[in-house]
Amino acid sequence: MNDIESQTKDEAARLVTELQERICHRASAVERSVAAAGGPDAASFAIDAWKNEGATNSIGGYGSTRVIAGGSAFEKGGVNTSIVTGRSLPPSVVAQRPELAGHGFFAAGVSVVLHPGNPNAPTAHCNYRYFEAQAPDGSRSAWWFGGGADLTPFYPVLEDVRHFHGTLRDACDRHDPRFYPAFKAWCDRYFFLKHRGETRGVGGIFYDYLDAGGFGESGERVRFEEEKSASAMLAFMRDAGEAFVDAYFPIVERRAREPFGEPERSFQLLRRGRYVEFNLIYDRGTHFGLQSGGRTESILMSLPPLVRWTYDARPEPGSREAALQAYLTPHDWFKDDPFAP
Amino acid sequence: MNDIESQTKDEAARLVTELQERICHRASAVERSVAAAGGPDAASFAIDAWKNEGATNSIGGYGSTRVIAGGSAFEKGGVNTSIVTGRSLPPSVVAQRPELAGHGFFAAGVSVVLHPGNPNAPTAHCNYRYFEAQAPDGSRSAWWFGGGADLTPFYPVLEDVRHFHGTLRDACDRHDPRFYPAFKAWCDRYFFLKHRGETRGVGGIFYDYLDAGGFGESGERVRFEEEKSASAMLAFMRDAGEAFVDAYFPIVERRAREPFGEPERSFQLLRRGRYVEFNLIYDRGTHFGLQSGGRTESILMSLPPLVRWTYDARPEPGSREAALQAYLTPHDWFKDDPFAP
Repeated sequence: MNDIESQTKDEAARLVTELQERICHRASAVERSVAAAGGPDAASFAIDAWKNEGATNSIGGYGSTRVIAGGSAFEKGGVNTSIVTGRSLPPSVVAQRPELAGHGFFAAGVSVVLHPGNPNAPTAHCNYRYFEAQAPDGSRSAWWFGGGADLTPFYPVLEDVRHFHGTLRDACDRHDPRFYPAFKAWCDRYFFLKHRGETRGVGGIFYDYLDAGGFGESGERVRFEEEKSASAMLAFMRDAGEAFVDAYFPIVERRAREPFGEPERSFQLLRRGRYVEFNLIYDRGTHFGLQSGGRTESILMSLPPLVRWTYDARPEPGSREAALQAYLTPHDWFKDDPFAP
Repeated sequence: MNDIESQTKDEAARLVTELQERICHRASAVERSVAAAGGPDAASFAIDAWKNEGATNSIGGYGSTRVIAGGSAFEKGGVNTSIVTGRSLPPSVVAQRPELAGHGFFAAGVSVVLHPGNPNAPTAHCNYRYFEAQAPDGSRSAWWFGGGADLTPFYPVLEDVRHFHGTLRDACDRHDPRFYPAFKAWCDRYFFLKHRGETRGVGGIFYDYLDAGGFGESGERVRFEEEKSASAMLAFMRDAGEAFVDAYFPIVERRAREPFGEPERSFQLLRRGRYVEFNLIYDRGTHFGLQSGGRTESILMSLPPLVRWTYDARPEPGSREAALQAYLTPHDWFKDDPFAP
């Protein structure tokens, strides 16, 4: 297979690397700030660069897994990039884009999961990626962007949830007023644990198959009036990636200094179990990665450091722990406090 | 749908309840024995009986979830029964038995997972079940048994592995000399974590679609020369269930008294992560239960109490922890020690 000629490809590869750098830089600053405020010593990211590993149907690629562990703010976290070329698009993509069966692909993505140690600070995830499909004759047959960011608090604070969503909404609105409402609803649908009847957290944004003509999966596709360029989409990816930084880290910086005790820690470990359940039972990216022979340790870096499962654990009615449940269902966070008495 | 008339149905329901009683009784005795030897106080099983809950396509049923937590020997465990009647066989069964599409079913099963607190004592699982399919005209269209038992040590002892397999083998051999070799191999294939390239533990036995004519899935079915009766199969289920008790509990009783420290505990929590990965990513029973709206807390009682994930953790070469890896691949445990230098 010849290399796909595409400026967008090079720019996307550069962008995911820049976003990784930006995110690690800011996370490290939060580490130092929380440590200076009296936490344990600040941890730094270890870099695990790899080359030509990955999916069994891949021709080659490179990336780096940057991990942090035992930090002052972050008990565990990973900020990964992956830039790979493959012989054929995975079944999960072909199911939604049957016309691309047998086409090769290029993918460049950055993937982030951060688990703070302090239960007052939420866990967060983001992932931004660019895909190209290549027809058997070597031409580029399709391209699209996907991604999203979501927040999983243990002791949610409405002000924080509004800050997180507001920052992502502002970034979306700068590009298209239809983005935030559509991507917010998509996020609520995607990060849902059917067997628990609850969302993973308070959501954020989620989107896929965003290209010149519109976005969304075949059945429910939104079409733009005028085609947008790949560079406009790249600009959105950059903006959404930077918005994650501004949406998430100020929350950790504030909440990771708050005092907590054993009951809060115990509740955090229990709720982290839900995070594991979502990632291992439902998450398409995790399943595709593991089933196709991806790099297991990079894929499973998303799992929390320490997790607890207790049979039929139920918070005391009226407790701070019981208050979480009202947040685990889709809400318009900008309306009046839906939880006011 | 009329009730299925069948003596086997009543006998299977009685048997799973008896096995539950037997297993809890023996586990409680081990609890007391380990506590008397200087452990923390012995815990006892809490009984959570339920009725008419369960799968969305079920007509009704009953069962009980018996759980133990924070014990001297058992940090967490569950011994569950479930006796249910359903409107239509689940897709996972119909995929293997297409002639039964749309048929109703009756199922009686007992399911056990025990997680000792001491890393020297292995985790264990067993499940024995009886299924009946009912044609639209109300007649019994098929019946079969399924089940198995497997052992997941953290610090394996070859003598223990031989005792576990030997006890199960003896029970199998009393019924059919083909059972143990076939069921042992099936267990090695089933409890395999593809993304880790390792078995869940040291195996045991696993079988399904065991009926009058033979056993195995459509493609690789072993046929008996002469048909066996349902009562012969019930006798095997009873024997296999009792063999689990004799295979597992003496190991816990011995190993749960051995001293251990923080490094062993830490390795146990890490390895428990593999147990979670298997159950949430691969286990058919877990997936079917959760996706069909089963009783979530009873299904997920199999998950360990406390679990750790660390990026790319690798035991020191030559350490006791590194020694486990050689056990996580299929072996004939009765041959000379495959790990002798």
